[in-house]
Amino acid sequence: MSQLRKDPIVGRWTIIATERARRPAAFVDPLSTITDPKQCPYCQDIASKGVYESHGVKVVNSRSPILDDTKPFELRGHGLYDVCHSYGSHEIVLEVSEHIANMADLPKEQINAVMQTYALRMQALRKNPFIEYILAYKNYGVAAGSRNIGHSRSQIMAVPVLPMRVKDKINGAQKYFDFHERCMFCDMITQELKDKQRVVVENEDFVVITPFASRFPFETWILPKDHHCDFADAIKDHEDSLAAIMKDILLRFKIGLNDPAYNYMIQTSPVKNPSSFKDYYHWHIEVMPRLTRVAGFERGTGFYICPIPPEMTAAFLREVDIHA
Amino acid sequence: MSQLRKDPIVGRWTIIATERARRPAAFVDPLSTITDPKQCPYCQDIASKGVYESHGVKVVNSRSPILDDTKPFELRGHGLYDVCHSYGSHEIVLEVSEHIANMADLPKEQINAVMQTYALRMQALRKNPFIEYILAYKNYGVAAGSRNIGHSRSQIMAVPVLPMRVKDKINGAQKYFDFHERCMFCDMITQELKDKQRVVVENEDFVVITPFASRFPFETWILPKDHHCDFADAIKDHEDSLAAIMKDILLRFKIGLNDPAYNYMIQTSPVKNPSSFKDYYHWHIEVMPRLTRVAGFERGTGFYICPIPPEMTAAFLREVDIHA
Repeated sequence: MSQLRKDPIVGRWTIIATERARRPAAFVDPLSTITDPKQCPYCQDIASKGVYESHGVKVVNSRSPILDDTKPFELRGHGLYDVCHSYGSHEIVLEVSEHIANMADLPKEQINAVMQTYALRMQALRKNPFIEYILAYKNYGVAAGSRNIGHSRSQIMAVPVLPMRVKDKINGAQKYFDFHERCMFCDMITQELKDKQRVVVENEDFVVITPFASRFPFETWILPKDHHCDFADAIKDHEDSLAAIMKDILLRFKIGLNDPAYNYMIQTSPVKNPSSFKDYYHWHIEVMPRLTRVAGFERGTGFYICPIPPEMTAAFLREVDIHA
Repeated sequence: MSQLRKDPIVGRWTIIATERARRPAAFVDPLSTITDPKQCPYCQDIASKGVYESHGVKVVNSRSPILDDTKPFELRGHGLYDVCHSYGSHEIVLEVSEHIANMADLPKEQINAVMQTYALRMQALRKNPFIEYILAYKNYGVAAGSRNIGHSRSQIMAVPVLPMRVKDKINGAQKYFDFHERCMFCDMITQELKDKQRVVVENEDFVVITPFASRFPFETWILPKDHHCDFADAIKDHEDSLAAIMKDILLRFKIGLNDPAYNYMIQTSPVKNPSSFKDYYHWHIEVMPRLTRVAGFERGTGFYICPIPPEMTAAFLREVDIHA
């Protein structure tokens, strides 16, 4: 049984995937890649029984889940360490039935259906009283941590503990609110729209910026103009403009940066006591191409070096002709 | 002038390297590599005027520094953001005059001289009253964030702010001490030496473990058995056993894992008010090969997935014959 283990120094949780553990020797050679669509496991999964299905989007349980909810959640000690079995759920969102690799190439209507699917699955998964956080995210390309299988997909993980980075964001936003009695993200949107230098694109509901203290080259955030802490509740009736701006930014990456690997992560509020976050937390999506490697300095300090200013990457992305 | 910028949400600092900014188009193609030793800039630097030199180890200022201390340190606001010019120092430690790539292949005496050099440079750099933290670290191999130039080297960065991850470690260790009135690291060493499962190797002064909540496959920590918060002060008279255990673990990586890319980072206490950390912080070195990519889940939550248990990697590393 896989385990959730907590680093006793900083409180960071790790899933130790013993169930699907690769043998040590497997790390010596790179992972094998699957290029033949006939061998694509996701094309096969499209035909299998799923958890949810609508508009060509299908949700299935992971074939090699690293979390499962068949045993009750129970934390225990091991000397000074904390551990529990890897409780939670791990779902794969098959975004399209055809073997198409990049979400940038899906019709806007299909991306809309994916966003609706995230919201519906989050609403279903949060009914489990043991779940503390739900993350919907995408890994596209090997450099983004994905297996090299060209079928557009994303993942939803539901975990029974509050992840460290989520806590950091919540705490930071709360401190700002305590001092200013305003939402930091709303202030940021106001400042960025006035400043314009770091704005890539906007529509009626969303603005895409390259953050002021970007960690990575071409890092972007999709910020909803309306204040709301929770993605699943806020997105209703705005799926279409989110799908439009998501396709827009992913096309800018694809055309301007030669189809790079990328990740996106929906940053929503924790599942429990949502009313306690509603004043100061503001959901958003981080979208970032993977063009550089994190080195020892970043690993050792959590202090990043970004080799290009966000003002320059925003200007570059604004100029990309996505209608060419 | 490059800048230090702070993420207003989580307080994370980023160095925005405007000085040596690559043009956006430079991210489209991979970095060029240098394989001919005659073109190695570090072989050339060995002959140049350095900051410090002893026993064949030479310290030079970076050719493309991302930090400099020629202007006074001054934080200023930019709307809701904090920014200053990139104050600090950025030194390169050339570990050997010959064009040898991997520290694992250096004689133990040479690694000893490198460790002494780190301590001496830290003692010199911390005299600057604006410096809050000094990180000595190594990037070996492209996957570890290094340029592909086969000359063994490491880096020392001195920065005027306390990095987020250092704060997290300090705060966690302090909480444990407040509760137990004992050092968490000392307790961890006691538990690990008794448990034995995660111990890779030990000598009279140090023990190498694979941490209980490892983030990465084959992650290791070198823990000094004697309690001390500060590397530069503690290492005196122990350089030789540190060099021996560093060479040992790096050889286990090289032989057992087919010469992987790796990073190490010396985790020492902050520069200011060292006496306030002395009871509860315990310096150590994180050493980790770079065998997998961080994906969206880790990026989005700070919650890691480790595909192999540390008990299995410790057993594998123990079995590697480094005298073959």
